[in-house]
Amino acid sequence: MKKPSFPFSFEEYLKEAEAFHGFAAPGLLVGGYMVNKAIKHFPAGALYEALCETSKCLPDAIQLLTPCTIGNGRLRVISLGRFALSLFDKDTGVGIRVSPNPAKVESWPELNAWYTKLKTKHEQDLNLLISQMKQAGEEILEQRPIRIKPEVYGKISRGPMALCPGCGETYPAAAGSSCLACQGESPYVA
Amino acid sequence: MKKPSFPFSFEEYLKEAEAFHGFAAPGLLVGGYMVNKAIKHFPAGALYEALCETSKCLPDAIQLLTPCTIGNGRLRVISLGRFALSLFDKDTGVGIRVSPNPAKVESWPELNAWYTKLKTKHEQDLNLLISQMKQAGEEILEQRPIRIKPEVYGKISRGPMALCPGCGETYPAAAGSSCLACQGESPYVA
Repeated sequence: MKKPSFPFSFEEYLKEAEAFHGFAAPGLLVGGYMVNKAIKHFPAGALYEALCETSKCLPDAIQLLTPCTIGNGRLRVISLGRFALSLFDKDTGVGIRVSPNPAKVESWPELNAWYTKLKTKHEQDLNLLISQMKQAGEEILEQRPIRIKPEVYGKISRGPMALCPGCGETYPAAAGSSCLACQGESPYVA
Repeated sequence: MKKPSFPFSFEEYLKEAEAFHGFAAPGLLVGGYMVNKAIKHFPAGALYEALCETSKCLPDAIQLLTPCTIGNGRLRVISLGRFALSLFDKDTGVGIRVSPNPAKVESWPELNAWYTKLKTKHEQDLNLLISQMKQAGEEILEQRPIRIKPEVYGKISRGPMALCPGCGETYPAAAGSSCLACQGESPYVA
């Protein structure tokens, strides 16, 4: 759905979100409006990249609605815990940041309870929440121009690979004489 | 395609990979076989999660072929630079790790040049590479049982949210008296 999605059909997006994410999570819905707003900043065909300030839900809205994914390196997730995203020119880092405006969110009680986490997932009235999200749409959002720090958006080549004497697998030689896992960063119980 | 994908059709997967990732990258193709192999370890309907040891390409194979995504928290990416993935039981951390076996890869010259990065992207013969990947399929892969460290697979609730006095946005209160961005971790030029 990536190409024909703008202006996007909310119902079609709900279906896509459900298939990809497992369920049509509220964060994905607001995220849809956020991506939709940010993307307008760029002419069709522009090569933008994305930065997401939370790992919860929002990265999937970006992956569903833009060409930016974790695996292709065009989406960076920096876990700051803020529900915000930026799209930016890949060469200059200049772009737009979109986030909910807390003051505007406040006038939608169920939406506000979700945004401020006043209610747990089980206390939420999901139908009411989705209905308020649809009614509010982009109204509750704000945007501001941003420039990403070069050290954040710059791409660094991994350089040559080597065979790790510990595990026998290839790894970026720049990591040292063995791979990071064999240097102690393994996520596995020995 | 997530549900009906196993055993997966390589051609259908190529199309999905292209739509999601932007192009049918070699890493996504090998990644498809890797996911296919790992997933057989679990009975249908099992609630597994995923760990990916590289941020390059492979996370997208996982996101396309399993219910695990970055945004729903069921996929963790730990950038160790090893082309490997694990699927594991979400409650015990017990599961299976799949990776290419360097000795087996060696008998496929173009595949080996890709895996060991002996050739740059521009030097690769993409048709030959894909053809070798298809012929080799799961033959070049190895698997071993693993257990993820509890501190890696355990989920920590963010706890209550607060309004940041710096930026005015909500953030996890546990971060301190202001959000991490206002504490100096902002990715934006001031």
